[in-house]
Amino acid sequence: MRDIQTVINSITEKMLPRLGAAKVADYIPELAKVDPKQFGIAVTTVDGQTFVAGDAKVQFSIQSISKVFMLTLALGKTGESVWKRVGREPSGSAFNSIVQLEREMGIPRNPFVNAGAIVVTDMVLAGHQPREAIGEVLRFVRYLADDETISIDNRVAKSEQTTGYRNFALANFMSSFGNLHHPVDHTLGVYFHQCALSMNCVQLARAGLFLANRGRNPVTGHSVVSEKRARRINALMLTCGHYDGSGDFAYHVGLPGKSGVGGGILVVAPGKASVAVWSPGLNEVGNSALGSVALEMLANEMGWSVFGA
Amino acid sequence: MRDIQTVINSITEKMLPRLGAAKVADYIPELAKVDPKQFGIAVTTVDGQTFVAGDAKVQFSIQSISKVFMLTLALGKTGESVWKRVGREPSGSAFNSIVQLEREMGIPRNPFVNAGAIVVTDMVLAGHQPREAIGEVLRFVRYLADDETISIDNRVAKSEQTTGYRNFALANFMSSFGNLHHPVDHTLGVYFHQCALSMNCVQLARAGLFLANRGRNPVTGHSVVSEKRARRINALMLTCGHYDGSGDFAYHVGLPGKSGVGGGILVVAPGKASVAVWSPGLNEVGNSALGSVALEMLANEMGWSVFGA
Amino acid sequence: MRDIQTVINSITEKMLPRLGAAKVADYIPELAKVDPKQFGIAVTTVDGQTFVAGDAKVQFSIQSISKVFMLTLALGKTGESVWKRVGREPSGSAFNSIVQLEREMGIPRNPFVNAGAIVVTDMVLAGHQPREAIGEVLRFVRYLADDETISIDNRVAKSEQTTGYRNFALANFMSSFGNLHHPVDHTLGVYFHQCALSMNCVQLARAGLFLANRGRNPVTGHSVVSEKRARRINALMLTCGHYDGSGDFAYHVGLPGKSGVGGGILVVAPGKASVAVWSPGLNEVGNSALGSVALEMLANEMGWSVFGA
Amino acid sequence: MRDIQTVINSITEKMLPRLGAAKVADYIPELAKVDPKQFGIAVTTVDGQTFVAGDAKVQFSIQSISKVFMLTLALGKTGESVWKRVGREPSGSAFNSIVQLEREMGIPRNPFVNAGAIVVTDMVLAGHQPREAIGEVLRFVRYLADDETISIDNRVAKSEQTTGYRNFALANFMSSFGNLHHPVDHTLGVYFHQCALSMNCVQLARAGLFLANRGRNPVTGHSVVSEKRARRINALMLTCGHYDGSGDFAYHVGLPGKSGVGGGILVVAPGKASVAVWSPGLNEVGNSALGSVALEMLANEMGWSVFGA
Repeated sequence: MRDIQTVINSITEKMLPRLGAAKVADYIPELAKVDPKQFGIAVTTVDGQTFVAGDAKVQFSIQSISKVFMLTLALGKTGESVWKRVGREPSGSAFNSIVQLEREMGIPRNPFVNAGAIVVTDMVLAGHQPREAIGEVLRFVRYLADDETISIDNRVAKSEQTTGYRNFALANFMSSFGNLHHPVDHTLGVYFHQCALSMNCVQLARAGLFLANRGRNPVTGHSVVSEKRARRINALMLTCGHYDGSGDFAYHVGLPGKSGVGGGILVVAPGKASVAVWSPGLNEVGNSALGSVALEMLANEMGWSVFGA
Repeated sequence: MRDIQTVINSITEKMLPRLGAAKVADYIPELAKVDPKQFGIAVTTVDGQTFVAGDAKVQFSIQSISKVFMLTLALGKTGESVWKRVGREPSGSAFNSIVQLEREMGIPRNPFVNAGAIVVTDMVLAGHQPREAIGEVLRFVRYLADDETISIDNRVAKSEQTTGYRNFALANFMSSFGNLHHPVDHTLGVYFHQCALSMNCVQLARAGLFLANRGRNPVTGHSVVSEKRARRINALMLTCGHYDGSGDFAYHVGLPGKSGVGGGILVVAPGKASVAVWSPGLNEVGNSALGSVALEMLANEMGWSVFGA
Repeated sequence: MRDIQTVINSITEKMLPRLGAAKVADYIPELAKVDPKQFGIAVTTVDGQTFVAGDAKVQFSIQSISKVFMLTLALGKTGESVWKRVGREPSGSAFNSIVQLEREMGIPRNPFVNAGAIVVTDMVLAGHQPREAIGEVLRFVRYLADDETISIDNRVAKSEQTTGYRNFALANFMSSFGNLHHPVDHTLGVYFHQCALSMNCVQLARAGLFLANRGRNPVTGHSVVSEKRARRINALMLTCGHYDGSGDFAYHVGLPGKSGVGGGILVVAPGKASVAVWSPGLNEVGNSALGSVALEMLANEMGWSVFGA
Repeated sequence: MRDIQTVINSITEKMLPRLGAAKVADYIPELAKVDPKQFGIAVTTVDGQTFVAGDAKVQFSIQSISKVFMLTLALGKTGESVWKRVGREPSGSAFNSIVQLEREMGIPRNPFVNAGAIVVTDMVLAGHQPREAIGEVLRFVRYLADDETISIDNRVAKSEQTTGYRNFALANFMSSFGNLHHPVDHTLGVYFHQCALSMNCVQLARAGLFLANRGRNPVTGHSVVSEKRARRINALMLTCGHYDGSGDFAYHVGLPGKSGVGGGILVVAPGKASVAVWSPGLNEVGNSALGSVALEMLANEMGWSVFGA
């Protein structure tokens, strides 16, 4: 194995001159305020070591990356019956497309597009009050990352709630097909809060480590999911983790990953490490521009692609 | 590593009572004649050993599996400029859908749906006569499998030519956008012939071995593609190899694969082996029903999923 | 001219044995309670006579028929700039389809599908409070029909508000494109109330009479719209008045019309009469089953098709 | 009635300064050669008089206008069973869209989009050789117009045959659903020839006169279709005659009409007259730009809209 610290230092250096070139997401007002000239990376290996470079300890809004944790939580609660209400196929569409929902009678394509994550949130809600469910999500992510300081940025949650017409459209549309079991306001209340989880690269890499290590966090010893379930969540991240850029990410990086419009990407190198990168500027399909480039470099340098020998 | 022969014997035995339950593809008249009560499997490891069970030496029509070889050939001829005329994203649609083509102005989603493979065939044709291109394809597959006896079943090719209205529709549609550079009849002539390649599981597993071994066939020593390109082709197989069943296959099997309506599936376990299964009965998304089940068992037993540790 | 009373008596008699065969709309709970075994018809001629038969004086929920009055109101307020926010083309889709909206960036196809009527309602709202706008709509319809007893059924409005997820989806979706200028709850509040206008056939036929008489109500003498605008509203009713059954209605009846899921249909015979029919059972495209049949008979008997000599 | 000659003279004069501003269709090479600076109009009244202005006696390619004559012919042969293989609803799509065909299993929306007219052509073919069917079509149009000099421009037919990939796509697509009963080449052979009918405004207005006069040509006395069928064909022209510009045409002109990319438009004023205009430059939805404007003026001046009193 190459010296991870050297590799990520070198990558971070190469990113410096390109900082700020790509545009920050602006459809959520709070996110539009973030300084685009930032880049951080953290790698946590399955033997428990953590390597960092750049702005790895700056908090950011993880946004859609939380969809991975929500799915893990829902699978824990409901098991494979999750798949009665959401599919497992790549959508070939943008994160907030509604077209497919009409054709497929309110069943979203997969848990990593917005519609799918809203249904998954509805499963996590499971009859509780939104406040309780938000608490449960927060506790779960703290447990995964073994870090009690992780919190939710209420201004971001509020900001999305006020401007998230598309998500209200998706939720109401699914309700019209009976695929939400709670009032739209409740489900979306939880949804906007879990999107607003505020983490840094180190916390995020640690939270994802169980997926690189057969379902078990090697640091805390917590067994989060079975080995088989860890493989399956990884498979979903690889095929569906980047909306209509999923094929491209698999082609260039070759690792399961999930991106968020806050500029973060969580990536899993099975049997090796969990990686979190963050840089707020986005490319044309809504993924962190520098983050994607950095991960391609890292996967190549380390030989971590799941598609190689 | 578990004893491969024992594993595939056991799998084959479990398949026996289920033979003939699923329906054979009937839209190509010649294929409809095949006896559904057959099952074969061949595994070729990167150290050159081959293990077989069941009807592993019966010839069958590889159909869409050839799309992998055609893409390899086109990438060799044109390099990454292939991606100017065909995308790299999962389609979320059936193999012969035309809807996406209209929305995306004649650019197919990926090289593994019919429209994409027709464009790839047009690239392979590259100004030559159909007869020459068919010869080149045949030579290439024989070279990959190191087997000069591989042939094309002209009755199958003819049968598709007579009934392949959908493919004629797709080809003419792309021509209307200028995305075919040869007469429709020429491109489809080659397309129908490469679909009609007749191979058995042993030949097919060997032909795919370079993808499991960093681009190099370990038996013949031929370097077919670079290590990076092998990884990328594998990535495409994983995200797009089974039409609108691609996500499901990744979830259950966790290996890059490409299926054909003849009932064959080629699967790559990077660094380990190339696997070919065949059983003519198809499931509801058009993949071999028993083949899919057998591969899930094999991947589980051998611990070969790319998403595990 | 044939004797209208004789003709509608004969039609009503023919309808009697078929009463109750078709199913009442059940997606709005309040409407599901209506007794399906009812049929009424009223014809008001441009010389001011009214002919009735059957249940012509029973109140029913006019539902989508109100879209005609809302468009008239919006055109009066904003003139032809209405067409910047809504199209004028038949949709070829169901009344509540959302697919077209995504493709056309939040601009509904025409004012007679739900999405279009919601935008038109937003124009009528024009900065006022929902309560004021509802009052204005009610006053306008009373003025058109010259009948101060017309009212809004608040239970129906409430019933739709509680179950109208699709309309909430449509409204939020258009808001995400900036095509609603008021809070979704305000616009939909007005929308659900105008749908819940309760009228009988006589009132409805009179309210539509201006469209048959060059924009002027011949009874009250009120000039509602210009002659040109009356023609244009009629044209929209003919091409778009029955969702994906518009072509069929034009083919069989040959008159501008607008149907509602409450089982009413308003039809305009330019230069001759305004007709309202009502029977709650719906056909497969959501129009009154007996109402459609009755209107075909009436148009044939009277020679009123706009497409004849 | 206003003096028709005065009205069309005045309209033609107003068109002169605008000649040549709009672009000629260029996707059929032969049509691209036509001089855009031409405008002609002919009006034939139900009492048999003909009024002309401008280039009313210059031959042009009637293109899609022939779809009206083909439908008339098919209805004569097969009656209402025509509607088992083609719909009667506006498509809301471009003339050559294929998307709807996939969703609706090979049944085109209406006989006036290309796919629908291809199916109608297949009905007219009815087991005969293409040459015979072309002869029949030509004889029928000569009979309608009472003019034996009408011919088909074989260079135009050839030009479309060589470049008509979209139509080949549509035809093959429908064949894949079993909705063509003859070889694609035969059906399209007839289709391309009937599109290439060469007529002038006078001939065209006369050929359409039966539709303005209850199905009977008042000049020849030929009874072409029943009164009811004439009304129904007019209804289809109004709702579907101008592709995704049908609603707009109804809104502005208010008369049943059918346009062709050659720049011609045939319009029917029921009980009054048949009108043909021609000017090669097209607007953004593919209809004659000046022709549309001229017809709006004519309908207004004469008070011919079917939606007025």
